[in-house]
Amino acid sequence: KQYRVAVIPGDGIGREVVPAALRVLAAAAKRFSFALATSDFDFASCDYYDKHGSMMPADWEKQLRPFDAIFFGAVGDPRRMPDHVSLWGSLLQMRRTFDLYCNLRGTRLIPGVPCPLRDPGKIDMVIVRENTEGEYTEMGGKLFHDTDREMVVQETVMTRQGVDRILEYAFTLAASRPAKHLTSATKSNGIALTMPYWDSRVAAMSARFPDVRVDSMHIDALCAAFVSRPASFDVVVGSNLFGDILSDLAPALTGSLGLAASGNIDPTRRSPSVFEAVHGSALDIAGKNVANPVGQIEAGALMLRHLGEEAAADAISKAVDAVLGRGDAAELTRDLGGKGSTTSLAEAVEKELLSA
Amino acid sequence: KQYRVAVIPGDGIGREVVPAALRVLAAAAKRFSFALATSDFDFASCDYYDKHGSMMPADWEKQLRPFDAIFFGAVGDPRRMPDHVSLWGSLLQMRRTFDLYCNLRGTRLIPGVPCPLRDPGKIDMVIVRENTEGEYTEMGGKLFHDTDREMVVQETVMTRQGVDRILEYAFTLAASRPAKHLTSATKSNGIALTMPYWDSRVAAMSARFPDVRVDSMHIDALCAAFVSRPASFDVVVGSNLFGDILSDLAPALTGSLGLAASGNIDPTRRSPSVFEAVHGSALDIAGKNVANPVGQIEAGALMLRHLGEEAAADAISKAVDAVLGRGDAAELTRDLGGKGSTTSLAEAVEKELLSA
Ligand SMILES: CC(C)[C@H](C(=O)O)[C@@H](O)C(=O)O
Ligand SMILES: CC(C)[C@H](C(=O)O)[C@@H](O)C(=O)O
Repeated sequence: KQYRVAVIPGDGIGREVVPAALRVLAAAAKRFSFALATSDFDFASCDYYDKHGSMMPADWEKQLRPFDAIFFGAVGDPRRMPDHVSLWGSLLQMRRTFDLYCNLRGTRLIPGVPCPLRDPGKIDMVIVRENTEGEYTEMGGKLFHDTDREMVVQETVMTRQGVDRILEYAFTLAASRPAKHLTSATKSNGIALTMPYWDSRVAAMSARFPDVRVDSMHIDALCAAFVSRPASFDVVVGSNLFGDILSDLAPALTGSLGLAASGNIDPTRRSPSVFEAVHGSALDIAGKNVANPVGQIEAGALMLRHLGEEAAADAISKAVDAVLGRGDAAELTRDLGGKGSTTSLAEAVEKELLSA
Repeated sequence: KQYRVAVIPGDGIGREVVPAALRVLAAAAKRFSFALATSDFDFASCDYYDKHGSMMPADWEKQLRPFDAIFFGAVGDPRRMPDHVSLWGSLLQMRRTFDLYCNLRGTRLIPGVPCPLRDPGKIDMVIVRENTEGEYTEMGGKLFHDTDREMVVQETVMTRQGVDRILEYAFTLAASRPAKHLTSATKSNGIALTMPYWDSRVAAMSARFPDVRVDSMHIDALCAAFVSRPASFDVVVGSNLFGDILSDLAPALTGSLGLAASGNIDPTRRSPSVFEAVHGSALDIAGKNVANPVGQIEAGALMLRHLGEEAAADAISKAVDAVLGRGDAAELTRDLGGKGSTTSLAEAVEKELLSA
């Protein structure tokens, strides 16, 4: 079996963690007898922008569509351009054009990674985020430019199709898990139109999944409950913005934000899904071989799971846990209190994977 | 000196913590030689709605405007009506009509209150939230009702006047504090119009306050940083929604969400400001004399500070700290591991205040 993977390192530490993670993926392919045919792309980076005046070539969609998946590093360099230029010209374009409507991030306690909470309990949750509409739009405009009356209006858009398909995904996922518990993030007490609509679609979908226990919580109270009782959550579903916030907050609470991965998924499989580490381009530590590659490695595991190589995905996560759990300073990167490098940590995972 | 205070207990535990807190305020008035002339109002409650078909009478503004401040309990009863009905008909009306554009909440570690973080450091921050515009609007609408093409659009509105005045308040506050550090919550990498506008106004205001060090952080990363380095924040300013989220998250991180207070303030003093506990109506424990009154008592301290009675406000907070710090189970409510009641805790604070 062979999978075609488009590799986009992007900016900053993306250029270091992506090659490091590819080593681990190659080892997994060897052990589990499949092949990854990778092709590198230099676009979706600020370097590309400097040379060509845009983040991606006009025919980027045509170039990327034939692939089975896209392995994405990190993009953005605020010293050269505002993030909304670099992001809307790359990752956010892919989410929209490929209709990658589901953003998926799992969070659990990781052995050897210090948790900032005194008494976390058994945290093991998945955040399902709507990834194409909602609060992230370019609709709206400005009036009375450069006067005291200046105002900006921006529109949030929720469609029945957009809301229902992400809710269906989240309900289906919750139904497949032992706890069968779904929490919906809302703010219908303040945001008077879109959020009550979201709530009404949750109620409608709930009727189709009688086995799933559903809670609805306002985003402010929900963030607070993530802190006070994180182990009580199973699957959590939110709009584009709320899902974004929750999927950074959850790994922060387990101390694993630098190690988290995210999938931008088209569950219909009409387009290639995009897998990325959550951490961003981290320019302050770029080029030093010190960045932690675990987030990118876990993005690789998520990608293999999506491609159907579940055993390989599990083996990678197990190898990561084993290496982090034994806490050998020579292997670990500095953020984990080690003396190693991006390369040493990736090599340790690779070795662990091949020796298992 | 005499202050006229409108008292609105509202729903649920509001009816218990408000009278409890008023005892403490009366004691403060006695000790610091001022008078509080209070008048009770039964509106802004779901009981009132049941009787009259609206949350407040038509002339509510005329009734409340003469007061120097409004002491507000909690409103909402989801068993009887959705929160957006009860809230838009009461508290959110007051914020808009009285133009209470500044929502203020301080968060610090409180002696005797267990902090969920392993290593919190010295948390002492103030969240300044825009309280009248932004994401909380009723502007927008629905199209293609009840069909597959159904969609809802909701508008976020930022005006130069609205953004600049809250930023000016936040910069002024930051400039008055030792750390002189302001963090601005944004999401300009995803929300393409309003958030870049917010950022540009922050940059413009920053030029007028050269002493204040300003950081801009995306709301997702900011929530994560609240967890990983809470003691590094001083004043944090955000839009209506972002401020709402951060001002629940911050007290959750110190374990003091049930004890937090908030001021809805008109810094121009043209209208009466509204002071409330953060906790909400908590109907599950209402009517049992078990609710913790500290949030409402601290709301009273905030109110006295706003009225110019700084010494009395400080004395109340000191008395609260003393009572919570000594941890006498007979005085404390159950949420703090005690065996006392709403009344016993308020009485303990009252006694401490008068004996100091
Ligand atoms: C009750 C609700 C509308 C309100 C808000 O979001 O403003 C509350 O969460 C608050 O922060 O005072
Ligand atoms: C970079 C940014 C636009 C992006 C988002 O908010 O979607 C990021 O925070 C993420 O979650 O992938």
